[in-house]
This record gives sequence, C-alpha cells and structure tokens, in this order.
Amino acid sequence: MSFSKSFDELVNALTCLPGVGSKTAQRMALDLLLKKPEQAKILAQSVNHALQTTQRCEICRNLSDESVCLICNNSMRDTQSLCIVEAPADVLAIEQSTDYQGIYFVLMGHISPLDGIGPEQLGLDILDKRLAQGEIKEIILATNSTLEGEATAYFLAELAAKHNISATRLAHGVPMGGELAYIDKNTLSLAFRTRNHYDTNTHHL
Amino acid sequence: MSFSKSFDELVNALTCLPGVGSKTAQRMALDLLLKKPEQAKILAQSVNHALQTTQRCEICRNLSDESVCLICNNSMRDTQSLCIVEAPADVLAIEQSTDYQGIYFVLMGHISPLDGIGPEQLGLDILDKRLAQGEIKEIILATNSTLEGEATAYFLAELAAKHNISATRLAHGVPMGGELAYIDKNTLSLAFRTRNHYDTNTHHL
Repeated sequence: MSFSKSFDELVNALTCLPGVGSKTAQRMALDLLLKKPEQAKILAQSVNHALQTTQRCEICRNLSDESVCLICNNSMRDTQSLCIVEAPADVLAIEQSTDYQGIYFVLMGHISPLDGIGPEQLGLDILDKRLAQGEIKEIILATNSTLEGEATAYFLAELAAKHNISATRLAHGVPMGGELAYIDKNTLSLAFRTRNHYDTNTHHL
Repeated sequence: MSFSKSFDELVNALTCLPGVGSKTAQRMALDLLLKKPEQAKILAQSVNHALQTTQRCEICRNLSDESVCLICNNSMRDTQSLCIVEAPADVLAIEQSTDYQGIYFVLMGHISPLDGIGPEQLGLDILDKRLAQGEIKEIILATNSTLEGEATAYFLAELAAKHNISATRLAHGVPMGGELAYIDKNTLSLAFRTRNHYDTNTHHL
C-alpha cells in the first residue's frame, strides 16, 4: 500500500500489459498522472473504444471494427493472392516489412490436436468455401516455422491442392545480417541444402 | 494503417507510456484485445478513476485520493521525523526498501532558478509553517544526489537550522555490490574521504 488507493490500483492494472512488472508499472502510473493526464485520458478512451468495436472480420477472421476489416474492404488489394497466417501480429509484420498487396486469412492459431484445435477451430471450413469460389489463384503459407506451424502449412497445402490452387511457403534460410557461426544447426543445414543460384540482380540488400 | 482504425488508435495511445515504442505498443494492444479483454477494461477504469480522484495531499504535497494522503493519515507513523524528497517515486522507493516509519514532504521538483522554480513552487512556505509548529524533531534530506538536488538539500538544511531542527542527509558512497574499478571518480573519492569505522555489527548485508 502506498500513498493513494487509486494509484495502487492503476499500478496493479498496468501490470497486465506484457513485459510490464511492478517497477515499470509504477513508473508508467506516475508518468501518466503527473506528466500526461491528457494522454492518459485518451489511452483509457482508446482501450474502451477498441474493446467495444473490435470483432472478427467475417471474411478473413482478423480483428476488425466492422463486419469486414479494412484490408478485405480495400478495393485496391489483389484478391487473387491469399496469405494465410496464424495471428493478427503476423499480418502487421508482413504489412510493415513487405510490399505484399494481396489479402489475408487469419487462422487465430495453429492445428494442435492435444489442445483440441482442429480445422474447424481455425475456420478452415470458411476457407474451403472461399477457395471453391475460384477467385483465389495463389495461396501463401505464412504460418510460423514451428512444428505446429509446419503441420498447419502441410494441411493447408493439401487443401489448396484439392482446389487446384498453387501454394507457396515463405523461404527458409539464413536471416539477413546473420553470422553463420551463430545460426542453429537446422536452419544452416536446410539453407545449405536449398542453396540458390547466385543472381547478381536479386542478391543485394 | 492496419486492419482496424480502433486498433491503430489504441496502439498510438499506448506509445504515450514511457519506454513503449510502436512495436511494443502493437504487442500490448493485441495482447489486451485477444487475451485480456477483462483486464483491459479494468485498466481503462483504473486510469479514469485515478485521473478523477488524484489530487495533492494538503499536508505533504504527495499524490492522494483525498485531501490528506494515506501516509499522512496513518496514525501509526512517527510524525516527529520528516523525510523530504523530490518526487512521489522517491517516496515509493524509500517505502519499498527501508523500514522508515516517519512521514514525508514531497517537493515535486528541486530548486532550479533557470526554470523559474524557487522555494514557493516547491511549497517551502507550507514546510516553513509546519516546522514552526515544533512537532518535527528530525528532517531527513533525501533529495537526489544531483547538482540541483544538493542545492535544494543545502537550502532545506538552512531552513531546518532556522527552526533549530536537526537535519540529516542520506549517506553517499559505494553502492552495495559495486565494484570499485567501475565506480565514478567523485563517488569513490567521497567514499574514501568519508570512510567509517568498521563495525562488525552493522557491516553486513
């Protein structure tokens, strides 16, 4: 207990944020109350507003304010290319680091029989119907490179094959800036086996 | 712009927190919306509640829910000992690391003529009246060990002398766990000059 109950409650509430312990929460609470009361007000409003409006996009399952999200609703996007990811964070990562102009499908998880997560929980029935419509020409399998992500990608590739749609998977290999001596065995071994022809046009940063 | 406007606004609002950049804010926003909607609601409530109720304690100037803070209002505290600090964060630090049972006075800053912060801005008129009442027997000068903090401590020591009250200053020296080779010159030089008699009873962790 400190000097004020509402302060302690605020500190406590802030520790729900990922990576925020009690010391950081204390610093945040003091900063909000002493230096940024206006921004604190906006923060509270933004949290409440996002909680009230956020739903799942009925087309891609991503987070959305409306029944259809901003990406699915954007007529400039290429609706022939569908990138399948595990989570909204993956959509953000791809949007922020690539010039991909297609659309997405967000699984909100990966196949994990032990946790009771099968194709239905990932909305693969919706995906199946969509692929059957014939508009999508390419599927990009962008699930994580974990055991479950790979298993999910395999499952999705079979689904694509059923509909005669080409499926690609993100390239695996040495990360840019990575030093060979510090890269894990599996990645290095795979990168060695799947080495590409050196093309002076594409191999530059 | 991502998939939802309210999401972008939430990310943006979260970056007002100290030490939170856009990547961390994104992670926090996804975490709040996808995994912790209940805690997010409590967070928004706590921010609003703290903003509404927080005022300054009329006795010690610290943050408080009522006109008098929980520490000043606690009859178990020793009202003969007054610890003067620069900020509420210092009160928290002392409460959490010492067994100090006295009360506080929070300057909410330090003397800084260039920034127009003089004795009145720090509430020293209130402090002066309080010292005149004669209840306080010891003042602990716990301002920061910076140029401004030291100047403030000097000013406060003179105020205490005026009222014939004993004033102590936190000890300076080598931090516990500190390695001599890495300690700054000023600290080491001061610690050397102000070395104490080695007492086997007090010198242990």
